[in-house]
Amino acid sequence: MVLEKIKKPNDIKKIPKENLDILAQEIRQFLIETISETGGHLAANLGAVELTMAIHLVMDFPEDKLIFDVGHQSYTHKILTGRKNEFATLRKFGGLAGFPKTKESDCDAFDTGHSSTSISAGLGMAFARTMQGKNNTVISVIGDGSLTGGMAYEALNNASKAETPFIIVLNDNNMSISENVGGVSSYLNQIRTTEAYLELKEDVKNKLKTVPKGKNMIHKIQNVKSGFKQLMIPGMYFEDMGITYLGPVNGHDIPAMVKVLKEAKRCKTPVLVHVLTQKGRGYAPAERHPARFHGAEPFDIETGLPAVKRTTPNYTDIFSTVMCKLGASNPKVVAITAAMPDGTGLKRFRNMYPDRFFDVGIAEQHAVTFAAGMAASGMRPVVAVYSSFLQRAFDQILHDVCIQKLPVVFAIDRAGIVGSDGETHQGIFDLSFLSEMPNMTVMAPKNKWELADMVRYAVEYDGPVAIRYPRGQAFEGLGEYRPAIEYGKSEWIYEEEDICLLAVGSMVKTALEVREKLIAEGRKVSLINARFVKPIDEEAVKKACKGHKLIVTMEENILSGGYGEAVRQYVDSIKTKAKLLNIAIPDTFVEHGKPAELMQMLHMDAQGITEQIMKF
Amino acid sequence: MVLEKIKKPNDIKKIPKENLDILAQEIRQFLIETISETGGHLAANLGAVELTMAIHLVMDFPEDKLIFDVGHQSYTHKILTGRKNEFATLRKFGGLAGFPKTKESDCDAFDTGHSSTSISAGLGMAFARTMQGKNNTVISVIGDGSLTGGMAYEALNNASKAETPFIIVLNDNNMSISENVGGVSSYLNQIRTTEAYLELKEDVKNKLKTVPKGKNMIHKIQNVKSGFKQLMIPGMYFEDMGITYLGPVNGHDIPAMVKVLKEAKRCKTPVLVHVLTQKGRGYAPAERHPARFHGAEPFDIETGLPAVKRTTPNYTDIFSTVMCKLGASNPKVVAITAAMPDGTGLKRFRNMYPDRFFDVGIAEQHAVTFAAGMAASGMRPVVAVYSSFLQRAFDQILHDVCIQKLPVVFAIDRAGIVGSDGETHQGIFDLSFLSEMPNMTVMAPKNKWELADMVRYAVEYDGPVAIRYPRGQAFEGLGEYRPAIEYGKSEWIYEEEDICLLAVGSMVKTALEVREKLIAEGRKVSLINARFVKPIDEEAVKKACKGHKLIVTMEENILSGGYGEAVRQYVDSIKTKAKLLNIAIPDTFVEHGKPAELMQMLHMDAQGITEQIMKF
Repeated sequence: MVLEKIKKPNDIKKIPKENLDILAQEIRQFLIETISETGGHLAANLGAVELTMAIHLVMDFPEDKLIFDVGHQSYTHKILTGRKNEFATLRKFGGLAGFPKTKESDCDAFDTGHSSTSISAGLGMAFARTMQGKNNTVISVIGDGSLTGGMAYEALNNASKAETPFIIVLNDNNMSISENVGGVSSYLNQIRTTEAYLELKEDVKNKLKTVPKGKNMIHKIQNVKSGFKQLMIPGMYFEDMGITYLGPVNGHDIPAMVKVLKEAKRCKTPVLVHVLTQKGRGYAPAERHPARFHGAEPFDIETGLPAVKRTTPNYTDIFSTVMCKLGASNPKVVAITAAMPDGTGLKRFRNMYPDRFFDVGIAEQHAVTFAAGMAASGMRPVVAVYSSFLQRAFDQILHDVCIQKLPVVFAIDRAGIVGSDGETHQGIFDLSFLSEMPNMTVMAPKNKWELADMVRYAVEYDGPVAIRYPRGQAFEGLGEYRPAIEYGKSEWIYEEEDICLLAVGSMVKTALEVREKLIAEGRKVSLINARFVKPIDEEAVKKACKGHKLIVTMEENILSGGYGEAVRQYVDSIKTKAKLLNIAIPDTFVEHGKPAELMQMLHMDAQGITEQIMKF
Repeated sequence: MVLEKIKKPNDIKKIPKENLDILAQEIRQFLIETISETGGHLAANLGAVELTMAIHLVMDFPEDKLIFDVGHQSYTHKILTGRKNEFATLRKFGGLAGFPKTKESDCDAFDTGHSSTSISAGLGMAFARTMQGKNNTVISVIGDGSLTGGMAYEALNNASKAETPFIIVLNDNNMSISENVGGVSSYLNQIRTTEAYLELKEDVKNKLKTVPKGKNMIHKIQNVKSGFKQLMIPGMYFEDMGITYLGPVNGHDIPAMVKVLKEAKRCKTPVLVHVLTQKGRGYAPAERHPARFHGAEPFDIETGLPAVKRTTPNYTDIFSTVMCKLGASNPKVVAITAAMPDGTGLKRFRNMYPDRFFDVGIAEQHAVTFAAGMAASGMRPVVAVYSSFLQRAFDQILHDVCIQKLPVVFAIDRAGIVGSDGETHQGIFDLSFLSEMPNMTVMAPKNKWELADMVRYAVEYDGPVAIRYPRGQAFEGLGEYRPAIEYGKSEWIYEEEDICLLAVGSMVKTALEVREKLIAEGRKVSLINARFVKPIDEEAVKKACKGHKLIVTMEENILSGGYGEAVRQYVDSIKTKAKLLNIAIPDTFVEHGKPAELMQMLHMDAQGITEQIMKF
């Protein structure tokens, strides 16, 4: 095993050149085997094996700084910096993170997780280096998908005028998480297929012929090419912007990449190196279905199918179905996603109503204001987005939607603790930042039926509405509790005395367990499903205060600015002897691990909450 | 007067062609006279007179939709849609807004205020129009400065593939609020000066010769041109992206613009019309100093000097001075602005330490992560930004700065009620959205000395720090109270009993007045300057609870998630009989007007707060 020679950073430089391709194969094999057990971002990592190796051959760690955009493609980097043996704990509580972490290794220069940040961070590091009189290399690796994010363009616009060395590697695999959208993507396609690139492509073609899967790719390239016969100077778009362009280069050809990277290192100003890679490369199921192997659950290597077959629907499925029905019943409903038709469940809507579906690329800001424009003209746009990515559009929600009170619906998936993706992906801030916005309505469903009811309600409501729901299996309990949604009204599920649990969305399920435990302790316990986080149901809270000694709010969100504090503000404003306890996530970032483990760590599982209540 | 014929939308079409230049002159004269009295965005409006007229000649209002990016250049549009007589009330409480407002007129298609939103909104309207089977025209007018914002690029990237008519007018005056930065700006400069543009330029040159100020502009154009002798196809950058490009066209030549706009209207897909204008055109002081006449106070028309000469420093001046001193004493300190070296007071730092100063363009997202990159490499970046614009970087602050606890200082100017710019510019959300972020420290100074002390403290602190301070004159009272800043500690100014005022930043001054009024009512009143909004000083709050019957928090920020709620959370957690009253901005957007008027309306002036306390 060549791979066994890699024990610490820079060890790759001792590997004989003729063994590098073997090393690449071993890394690929290791990734497939490991991720099939742990789950993780397979397709992106398989595509970046040789690229990462080439980068490591021209950089010295930890002196040189390497920033991975998004960061889910950093596994080979982790292996090459001596973390191979920790991969059994990948994405597990207390284990190796699935993203770069400065806390984990001094070879990780910058934490990433969200898209399109790497050029900004790298440019900052390049300037800092120069100001400090150092001469280390700074390389940011960004995918073509991340290039659809406006922030990347802001950074390119600045890099183009910077008088300091800085290398941007465009890892171009012709897709973001799903397929790419927009003009720049088409432009990159032209480069791939232009005459000037023919010679290089012949080289790629020959190499690809040696692997069984290669023939399909050639066919694809040739098909696309036929549309663009005109002469084109590769990279003129970047050159026009003022960025020196090198490439395109075959991203699976290590010597070719080492050569161009060395050339790039000689530049005194920022340079963009265009590298062509294939997502999922070397594992047939991932090559065929890269989106499915984006963030994969554990799978069977032979078939590529998930190891555990899902039998119950998750909230994304429920949302998917209700959107398809709404598409039929309400011609004003349109659906918008930022590069995640699969992840948000909008793929079916797209197939049924292609003219009313918009994938805008990794561009949450545009997604929201684009929706606002449609709402201002009489449509009912539904923006489906993960909670932590919606943070990108804070100002657009406030400034373009809320000020004008436009009827845009935000379907916020992955809200609350998401688990193995860690700090950058936890959706634990949305209730706070949305509640702070005037004119905004915020809801959260207790179970799968309520999510559908809320989406239906929201597209009829004349103003902005956010509905947030968690990752994973949809709660199928409490099916008998399905009163019609009424604006600002909570739902009494159990009406007793003593203690009143006031639970938001996903916490209703937990509250049922807490209630059982408290009853076992001899308490009487009421349960209210909040339904509306903003506005809070003052009438219900007042009634709860009258009939109970203790009110307990429960939410899977940071304490500051959340539901509990809004309830507290109200409770303190009325005359009552009832005490209030807020269960929420404390003022801290939450690392990766299984959601259940993390909730336990936060004392927010049923046991922890029961103890908090008993102590109080 | 030709202008008197304009009484309602579309009246301009009845004006004989030969009188249009006269109308332009009259509008210009009217703008100069009005804004010299009311204050307002003079330079941008003077530049866009003919452009707006040309647009009105090819559009029908209110059926057609016109969206102004940022919106401060919409005065001519307001005049041409029958709002001329309301200009005496411009930017005054209850009067005409300085930005487009759908509430004000159905000819205003979309509210704007922040930069780079117009293409997204316009594209949304274009699609909505097509889906509804209508055929009205949609035009978004965006400045070249706004084009540095990534959101505009996200929208362009999407527009390029849209199969629906949509016109983007690039109003290119070669500057944002200050001078432009970055590669795209250089590219536009090339277009202005390329051979293919020669003929048109001759035309511009001849026209410019007729006005006294024109000669300078020709000189400037010629200078820039010498650097770019090569043949260039104008707009290839946009064409590469997939956007049809028309232009460049002289933005002060109405027939030429009408011609190209009519051509654009015939396109079945999005088209970009490149229009060259001169900011401040027709008023010599504004042509010379367009940045000074960006958002102008009332001025003397003869001299161009402010009508009221400022004698006392504002907070921006204080910040400016302390940054210059820090530049000398601490070589790690760097300063970053998003296109506002004047507005944030960093101009002097730029002149003294050009290598440590970065103007990134209207690109708040990049600004923050660029700073994070520098901080990760050992520098101490200070990002100076207006509160409402910092909203653009919510995710970057959380994701790129706070997770890694990087020492980035946010100097947040225009925090709280800013006044005449209205809803979009009030800085009333920052305390909430920053407090929600783990690892963040939030401070607010009571007076000018404390601002300087806090900035000095912040650049030494090892983690993210936000300091927020208001627009306008710096408070110069309480100069004798200047204890050293201690982490998380508040400052007791008056220690009595009965009522304790706990005031944040700008509210300390108000609290002094409230205290006087309460004393006149026979109360004893303590006063604490909060200093730290996050973390709150629990010890001080506890002590206050012990010694007083009533604690009153006071902050110029929305109630939800702000300082008052954090204090409430703590007060409720300890055993006390003290009551708590939170004075904060309620759940509403705040319109334009003088800050004092607005604070009175909100019952947050000294009188209003005193009444709230007495009632409580």
